[in-house]
Parts: sequence; structure tokens; C-alpha cells
Amino acid sequence: MSHAMTPQLAALVTKHESTLNAALNAIKTRDYWTPYPENPSPRAYGETANADGEAAFKSYLNQSFALEMPGIVGEAGAEVSPYGIDLNVKYPLVDLGQLLPAMQDARKAWRDVGPQGRAAICLEILERINKRSFEIGYAVMHTSGQGFMMAFQAGGPHAQDRGLEAVAYGYTAMMHTPQSAVWTKPQGKHDPLVLNKTFTTVGRGIGLVIGCSTFPTWNTYPGMFADLITGNPVVVKPHPAAILPAAISVKIAQDVLTENGLPAHIVSMVIDEDGSKPATAELATREEIKLIDFTGNTPFGNWLESNCTQAQVYTEKAGVNTIVIDSTDDYKGMLRNLAFTLSLYSGQMCTTPQDIFVSKDGIETDLGHKTFDDVAGDLATAVSKFLSDPERAAMVLGAIQAPVTAERIENSVTLGTVLRESETLVHPHFPNARVRSPLLMSIDADKADTYMQELFGPISFVVKTDSTAHSIALATDAVKQHGAITLGCYTHNEHIQEQVEEAAIDGGVALSSNLTGGVFVNQSAAYSDFHATGCNPAANACLSDLAYVANRFRVVQSRRHA
Amino acid sequence: MSHAMTPQLAALVTKHESTLNAALNAIKTRDYWTPYPENPSPRAYGETANADGEAAFKSYLNQSFALEMPGIVGEAGAEVSPYGIDLNVKYPLVDLGQLLPAMQDARKAWRDVGPQGRAAICLEILERINKRSFEIGYAVMHTSGQGFMMAFQAGGPHAQDRGLEAVAYGYTAMMHTPQSAVWTKPQGKHDPLVLNKTFTTVGRGIGLVIGCSTFPTWNTYPGMFADLITGNPVVVKPHPAAILPAAISVKIAQDVLTENGLPAHIVSMVIDEDGSKPATAELATREEIKLIDFTGNTPFGNWLESNCTQAQVYTEKAGVNTIVIDSTDDYKGMLRNLAFTLSLYSGQMCTTPQDIFVSKDGIETDLGHKTFDDVAGDLATAVSKFLSDPERAAMVLGAIQAPVTAERIENSVTLGTVLRESETLVHPHFPNARVRSPLLMSIDADKADTYMQELFGPISFVVKTDSTAHSIALATDAVKQHGAITLGCYTHNEHIQEQVEEAAIDGGVALSSNLTGGVFVNQSAAYSDFHATGCNPAANACLSDLAYVANRFRVVQSRRHA
Repeated sequence: MSHAMTPQLAALVTKHESTLNAALNAIKTRDYWTPYPENPSPRAYGETANADGEAAFKSYLNQSFALEMPGIVGEAGAEVSPYGIDLNVKYPLVDLGQLLPAMQDARKAWRDVGPQGRAAICLEILERINKRSFEIGYAVMHTSGQGFMMAFQAGGPHAQDRGLEAVAYGYTAMMHTPQSAVWTKPQGKHDPLVLNKTFTTVGRGIGLVIGCSTFPTWNTYPGMFADLITGNPVVVKPHPAAILPAAISVKIAQDVLTENGLPAHIVSMVIDEDGSKPATAELATREEIKLIDFTGNTPFGNWLESNCTQAQVYTEKAGVNTIVIDSTDDYKGMLRNLAFTLSLYSGQMCTTPQDIFVSKDGIETDLGHKTFDDVAGDLATAVSKFLSDPERAAMVLGAIQAPVTAERIENSVTLGTVLRESETLVHPHFPNARVRSPLLMSIDADKADTYMQELFGPISFVVKTDSTAHSIALATDAVKQHGAITLGCYTHNEHIQEQVEEAAIDGGVALSSNLTGGVFVNQSAAYSDFHATGCNPAANACLSDLAYVANRFRVVQSRRHA
Repeated sequence: MSHAMTPQLAALVTKHESTLNAALNAIKTRDYWTPYPENPSPRAYGETANADGEAAFKSYLNQSFALEMPGIVGEAGAEVSPYGIDLNVKYPLVDLGQLLPAMQDARKAWRDVGPQGRAAICLEILERINKRSFEIGYAVMHTSGQGFMMAFQAGGPHAQDRGLEAVAYGYTAMMHTPQSAVWTKPQGKHDPLVLNKTFTTVGRGIGLVIGCSTFPTWNTYPGMFADLITGNPVVVKPHPAAILPAAISVKIAQDVLTENGLPAHIVSMVIDEDGSKPATAELATREEIKLIDFTGNTPFGNWLESNCTQAQVYTEKAGVNTIVIDSTDDYKGMLRNLAFTLSLYSGQMCTTPQDIFVSKDGIETDLGHKTFDDVAGDLATAVSKFLSDPERAAMVLGAIQAPVTAERIENSVTLGTVLRESETLVHPHFPNARVRSPLLMSIDADKADTYMQELFGPISFVVKTDSTAHSIALATDAVKQHGAITLGCYTHNEHIQEQVEEAAIDGGVALSSNLTGGVFVNQSAAYSDFHATGCNPAANACLSDLAYVANRFRVVQSRRHA
């Protein structure tokens, strides 16, 4: 270790060593693993965890949220829960002219903690975030609109997994280079040349993580922890509609930093002034910002990629995810699986399929031949049946995050032939919640202009194609032209399976085949599933791989004669 | 292995397995290692290797050089040796509209060879290049102007080392992800969820490697082999003054590819038409080009970084390398070491120091106190003494690659107080060679505008500073404002040493301390020394590290129930 470590930090390294090693192993084997229980059970989180978490969440409402940052000049914030509650939390506004130089000054302190120390601090932050998964779960629920179970899981342990995964990748990349080496070059009969060399990993600068409204922690932790582990202070810029989950996370990070004698503002947060121009573009083009992680709309993602040439930019943008149905050995299982997939969080996942391609000649199944109309109608029925229990419907659908998404559903009903109308549902516990069930339409393959645009929200098409070959060609088009994070396929024909596999590799999209049980195309598991590939227009990076971390630091060497 | 491997390719994998494993180990331990002997001895390369290599080189002169590429529409080439010989070699001109789509089509075949197969093919190419080190050495000598010994070593085995190093990094990065995995998630009392997953590495597209005139192989092989190992066809665009070494290398690669049933044009070469606008800008902005490696001037490097947003761009540009002299325990060793450093290849290395900072109060040495003027004068004398033997001078200095560099020497004599004039020397074997000895001047620290600009060639300043602290501050400025690949320091004061170490880490530049023997600040050893850091303006990447390779490929996954 190149830098002296305090006894306190050394103890933290020891405390988290086995978890770190298990994570390092998990990203190599890619088997199932997690240190963060996904079940919100009293046994895992304590008897009072749910009540405590809800109370903690409520304690933030109508209050000012405190963070430690230089240059605080005011406060702002105007979040409204999609469940119909004004959160009315105010967060600090900072002067970038004071914050960014102070963060720049903090780079050396953070660098000198060293990779092992930074890993321990990151794992301590994640552990504390994990212990507050209920509190963060309620915050995610009331900003994203996710149902509580999903908000807890995707916003809690699964997001923490993605954070730890980024730590593991960053640590792996840094540790490939030894911290010192002896270089001995033989010189024939003469004494060898011997040099002592040291290698120091240094961060690139300040990282900026731009969050989204639908997954305010899941899409924030990877960039935040990838920056931190590789030695970069990080400023989080949450979506104005989903600040609270980020703020709680930043506060926890600041607590751990100060407890370890480090400047709290190594992790900072910047928000927009109420009603004014968003702060993001100004922040993203600042010379001090060397790393940018963005999740959000394609035009702004493309703008960042083209204009922030001072930084390394990692984007996850929009796409058109698709399913190819050729045939199945489990027709009912397929319909059940797709009904859940289309319903979960009202289709507001970046992994939800929008287009389901079925040949006009129909499909072969274990229940005999099914025509195109059979498949389309049966899928609509399956969704309705799945949502017929109001409690389950409310839990799975959650609420529509943004009013514009609800409007989009209404405006889309003329785009195809409606198979299943979107209903405005009344939430059993939140009467003012913005709840909509999925809109499902059928459409002819020649209307590509309609179904190949991303229609964010619970809007899907069953597309009538000429053949499965045609379906595969259209799915490939969607990936290559519009980008996609997921591709699903159903077939019992090995030849078709091979064609789809080749199309997926050629287009560069993750493929899920014949999912009929408890795994869904829109779910991805940290340490095992790569989320996005970085090689189609939906994203220029992947959560997480070596490419996601290796450019966030550099190695500086020093050598002298032994 | 995901793809069927031919018995021929499997044999190649076996043939190169131990060399690959040794390279993978070397980049982790960073001890001295090489499979390519740097000594041009008959024992290592065969009794007739030198004569055969020279004959092979001469056989190209005044001939057309054949490469296998679709779309050949003519030929061009007008290389002139800095040793005063017209090479008059003509190379194919290609229509990009035919070449690039054909290379795009070849991506699948190259991808399907798989990482192991690609590694074996890369190592076979490198082995054959190694066997032709004399031939390539003469080609490097008569394009770059390097003396033969350096052309052989730096253009031969050392360049091959940098190519193999890139292969080892690319292989390491790809192999971090398994080719398949089983994911088993417990479900309490129910059966676990089990998924079979496969992971395929895919290249990003077509790679472009833009070569330079001074190191036509050393600076070309890293990008070329980094692209190849990670699954990308590559087009080499050599500097118009140094095509032959690249052409020979491309031809060897094409031979190995075709012998293994692969399209030769997976490795292609594009050159400029004689006398017309260079082809590089057009090529670099083509949508098919997803990776660009560039070595050359700063303005064009910056242009590539800003304008080729369709590609990942790796640049090595200009810089101002410096030496801080505070004190030394071996004054004569220091002078000898610096005299060689300044003389080698007439200062035309991107690692040669330009500015040597010495306090106006002089330095403490094992031979007593030396004033600023002592140090400046003794260094000038050391250079002259080292070059007093004409044979040695010719061998070490080589020739000046470009007429503009010779002109720059003449135009620089008024920039400071001349300590040692640059002489026009007559080469003992090539009467028309463009040979110049180093120009050494002293200058006051307040003339930063003069000595902080890169003056490419054998032009150096001894800069009179207020103190060693001032010297360190100026060296840091040079790194941060102008970029640097090397920083040297001489001190026997541990406190000063620590300050310089911190300055080097802060600025992001490789530091060499107290070199007085057989290692020189301008030399870097593959597998152990990182060349450039990627965190100062001299370069945005490093040869080689994980960051240099990890973004050249993506991982595409496929999953289904077990």
C-alpha cells in the first residue's frame, strides 16, 4: 500500500474484505450472488424496518434536506409523488464556482486513500444504504411511481448490487497493475539493470452522474461508485422529479466520508433552481468535469456525447425493445410471462418490450396452431386477467411517473388496432395516484414509422409480419437503427434460434429466449447480466464491464535504480 | 470456445500458448521479459539474417508493393530516405467505397475466430514480423532516419513487444468475462431459477491506425494489434514519409490471415495520393471507423478528438518533456546519461527532454558544488565528447527525418544563449544523409514562451530557475499546460524527491529519477513501463493498459432456462 492507512480505515478494509472478494468472484463466474437481501422481510432487515423506513421517509416531507457542501447559496425542490402527494422537500442550491474548485482540491485526499481504502469506504456506504432500503424504497416509490415492492427491490438491494458491481469492476481494473515492481534486465556477463518501479492510480477529475426520474438509484449508483472507486470525487445531478432518493444516498456517503476524516463534498449534489433553466448543460461542459454518466432521453444523451469532449461520457438513452414470437412449447407460460413483463411498472422500464413480432401465418404451440389474431387476443386477455386483482394490479403497475406519459397513452390509441385499452385505475391506498394499465395494439409491419419510434410508457404493439424471418429482420432493424437494451424470442426451432442469436450478436443486444417462468426479459441481475451493451444506439456503455471503469483512472509510474 | 476451430487454427493456438501466457504474466508482474531478442546477433536471428534482410529491403526499391485489397484503383508513394536515397516504392491506392464495406463484411469472420484464435493469429503475425526484423529494420532506418541499431531494436523487437503487450491486454480484458455461465438463484422451498448464459465479445467496427514518420512500427503495432485481438478489422494509414515498414507488416498479416482461410483485407492499408490532399481526415470521419489510433502533431490529434465522435479516439501528440536537476551523487554518470539521452536519434523521440531545469544557485554533487554555468557547460561538453567518435555519432544520431526539423534547428539558435552548436555532420556511409548534432542553449526561466513550446528535434534548453522548488513548479506547468510523456529528476534529497514524485502524480507523467547508468529517460520497456499516461495533454491514452483495450469490444449476452 503506497499510502499510510489510519487504523480506522484499516479496520474498514478488514470488515468489508470478504464481501469485496465475493463480488470480485461473482463478476468473473457470473453466477447468482448478492450481499443485499432482496426480500423486504423483518428477518433480513429487522422487525421495525418497514415502519422505521416509512417514518424516516415522512420526516423529510415539508423540510429542508441538509448536505455538506461549500458554496450553498439557497434551496429549491418541487417533487410531487405520482401517488398524489406533494413532497415539498427543499435541497441546497450551490454555486458551482465554489463547489467545483473545492471538489478539485479534494481529489488528492481521495486519491491518497488508495484503492483498498476507497473500496472499503464504498462498501461501507453501500452497507449503510442497504440498511436504509425501506426509507430509500419509500423515497423511490414516491418519486418514480414504482410500486413499493419494486421500489424496495430495484431501488434498494438491486441498485446496491449495481453499485457494488461497479466497485468490483473498478477494483479489478486498478488491481491489474501492481503497486510496485522490480524490473531486472540481464546484461550478459555484466550485472543486470535493476529498477524499482511504483505505479499509482489516479482519477481523471470530477465525475458527474445525471440521474433519471424512473430509476433514481439503480441508474445513479453505477456511475457514482465507478467514479468513487477509481479515485474521482462525484457530483450527482438527480432528475428534478426524483431528488430525494439521491439526496439520502449522497448524505449517507457524506457521513461515511467525514467519519473517515475526508471532505464530505467528495460526494456532492447539484439540483436545478425552481422554474429556471436546468443546470445540467452548464455543469456537464465545465472543464473540471472529466466523467459523465447519463440516463435519459436520446437527444440530450447525444448532445452530451457531442459537446462534452472534455469528458468521457457514458450514456443510456432510449430504444425500441422487441420480442420475436416464432413458436413455443409452453403457450400459457409465454402469455403469463409477457403479461407480467408488459404490466411491471406500467412499461416504464428501459428494458420493457414495445414491439412483439408475430408472423401473419401464426405460430405453432403445445396447444396447437395459433393464428396471429389468437396470439394478439390471448396476450391482451392474459394482461387483463393478470391485472384483474386490484391489489396486485396496483402493486405491479405502480403509478405513471410523468403526466406526459399518461398523455402519450391517450394520444396513442389511434396508432394501431386496439387489442386492449389502457384503463385509468383507482389505487386502493392512494386515491390521487396516476395509475394506468397497458395499452396493447396490433399493427401491420409496413407501419414501421409508427411502431419503431420509442413510445415510452405502457404502450405496445403486436406487429403482423410476413414470416419469422421478417420478424427477425425487423427486430434487427430496431436494434441497429433505434437501439435496444433487450431482445426476446420464443421458438422451439433450433435453426430459428440460431438465426436470432446471430441477429442479436450482429446488432449487439442482450437476448432472452423462451422465458416462460420466473425470469422476465425486462429484468437483469447484477454480477451476471450485462445491462445494455454499448454497441447499439440505446447506450454507449454497459452496466458494468471493464470498459465502464477502465477509462475512469490512469496509472502514473515512477522508476529509479534499485 | 463458442466457435468451431479448424485443426490448423487449434495447432496455432497450441504453438503460441506459452508465449501468450508469459506475456499475460509479464503485464501483471511488470518485470523484464521479452520473446523477441533485441540483439541483432547471428545467434538469435541466423548467420545470414542481416544480409538477407538488407537484400529484402533493397528488393522493394523502385518496385510496386503488392497488397490484397478490394477496390485497388492505382498506386502512389514518394518516400525518400533521410540517408539520401530515393526509395521509389509504389503502393496500392484503394477506393474507400469498396474497401470499407468489404472490411465491414469481414467483421463476422474475424469475430467468429474467437479470442483464442485471434490471439494465436496475432502471435503468429508477430513471430513472422520478428523473423524479418532486419528487413523491417532497414525499412525503418531509411524512412525514419534512425541509426540501424535503433531502427532494428525500436522498429523491430521493441515494437513487436508493444504489439504483443496490446494483444495481452486485449486478451486479459476479454477473458475477464467467461464465455458461458450457469446462473442459479435459490427460491426458498421451490426449485431454484436456473439460466444458461453465453457471452460473446464483439469488435466495435473497423479500426484506423494513423502512423507517424519517426516510429512507423513502434507507434503502429499497439493500435493495430489492440484492434485485431478485440475483433476489429484494421486499416493502417502510414505517414507518407514512412510507408514501407507498415506495408511489410500489413503484408505479413495478410499472409497469415489467408493461410488461415480468412479475408486478407482484415488488415488493410490506405495511403495518400501523390501530391493531393491527405486521405486521413476523410477516412477518419467515415461512419464505419469506430476506433482511431493516432500518433502525430497536436492540432490534428485535437481535431480527431473533437470531430470523430463516431469513433473512440486514442491520441499521442506533442509535449514538452523536462528534467529537474537538484543534486546528484554521480555527477559524471548524470552527464553521460543525459548526453546519450539528448543525442539518441537526434532528439526526435517523443520522450526526449527539451528543458533541463537548474537553479541559479547551482547544484551539490559528489564532485563538490557546481554552478549553473558549470552544469550547463559540462553538459555541452559531455554531448560533444560523446559524439567525438564519428562512427558512434552516426550510429546514435541517425539522420533528421524531415527537412523542416533541420530548418527548425537553424531557426532556433537565437532563442537562447548557445552552449553547444548543432553541427552538420557527414555520415561515414551515406554522404547525402541529413545528419545534425544537438543544439544546446541556456535560457532564463522567465522566457517560458520560448522554451515551453515544443521544438521537435535536437533542440534543448538548460533553464536557469530561482530554486529547485521553482524548477519543480515549471516542470509541473510543462506537464499540465503543454503535456509531457517523460519527466526526469536528479536529487539526493529525499524531501525534494517526494516533492517531485507528488508533482509527477499530480500532473500525470511518468517519472525517472537519478538515471546515471544504462537506462535512459527516453526509453520505455514494454510489459513494464507505461508509455504516456493519458492524463496530460501529450496523450489521451497509454501504451498499453486496460483502458487502451477495454473500449475496443463489447460483450453480447444470451440467456435461456437451463
